[in-house]
Amino acid sequence: MNVTAILFEGFETLDMFGPVEMLGASGQFETKFYSLEGGVVTSHQGVPVQTEMLDEAHEPEVLLLPGGMGVYAMLEDDSFIERLAELSKKATYVLSVCNGAFLYARAGVLDGCRATTYKARMDRAEEMFPQVKWERSARWIVDGNIYVSSGVSAGTDMALGFIADVCGRDCAEKTARYAEYTWNSNPENDPFAC
Amino acid sequence: MNVTAILFEGFETLDMFGPVEMLGASGQFETKFYSLEGGVVTSHQGVPVQTEMLDEAHEPEVLLLPGGMGVYAMLEDDSFIERLAELSKKATYVLSVCNGAFLYARAGVLDGCRATTYKARMDRAEEMFPQVKWERSARWIVDGNIYVSSGVSAGTDMALGFIADVCGRDCAEKTARYAEYTWNSNPENDPFAC
Repeated sequence: MNVTAILFEGFETLDMFGPVEMLGASGQFETKFYSLEGGVVTSHQGVPVQTEMLDEAHEPEVLLLPGGMGVYAMLEDDSFIERLAELSKKATYVLSVCNGAFLYARAGVLDGCRATTYKARMDRAEEMFPQVKWERSARWIVDGNIYVSSGVSAGTDMALGFIADVCGRDCAEKTARYAEYTWNSNPENDPFAC
Repeated sequence: MNVTAILFEGFETLDMFGPVEMLGASGQFETKFYSLEGGVVTSHQGVPVQTEMLDEAHEPEVLLLPGGMGVYAMLEDDSFIERLAELSKKATYVLSVCNGAFLYARAGVLDGCRATTYKARMDRAEEMFPQVKWERSARWIVDGNIYVSSGVSAGTDMALGFIADVCGRDCAEKTARYAEYTWNSNPENDPFAC
């Protein structure tokens, strides 16, 4: 399956690359990187990633969105939010990590859905997006075709959960072993619950 | 402190970006990315990263090297190995993740040192580099100013261990909490021991 990963200035490094590692290592997914304008986009921890223009992303099977300090600027960018809403409707699966869920919430993707986000921003999420059923204790949440995780490293656990759902539990466990990763495989086991 | 991160085609995504996340999130380190030729270098899982030429890397405080499938081609690249040996001598700290240790071993950096590597490549490490004291059970190993970790996600635990040693345990624990990361903080606790 193809993965359309959307980046923006100040995205959180591990939000994106934990899932990209696991999806890629499973052998079942190929990720391409996009941003609104294309070109080099730099993470909050200084990783400069080459991206294609978001207009060139068509029919994503898996849409993947990180969080990070850069989220708050993107919430005010109407053309980004509009394009995100369009792509979310076309995607087979819609994934976000950390406060990336704020962007889906702004785009209307999470209206009436169960969701979670970065625990240190949960109060703000509840204030800004009361139409979403935010959960304060969850490593990740699956609601229909939407997967949203808690902060940063929770995205890696969610990615393995997603692989298990789509490709089978064996594939996820093999991928975790390959990466010498101790997978927290229970989405309800949240060591960082509010 | 500045971190000189060395990339090559086919590096393993999480080997590099787990440590970069933790080092950056601690607020104590700034990472720059280099490769032998400069330009865009793509990870084994498809992440295209913009890099500077390795010749422009001077006096690294922290030298950081990932592993990955791309390691085996670099072992045969004499100019890369020579430059790596030079930079390792100048660096205050020398770090590698996974089979990145093969490159330091080839460059003579690990002669007579205790070290570990990706568990699925331990036999090969012992055959190729008998001058290194390889350890079959270790999440990571510290020998003097050299830090080497086991496979892929072990690098993230090692990075937090390195932060603890250099900046204090509180800083490492705060960084792990920030990233909602359950840190395996004991280098001898190796769930993937040979």
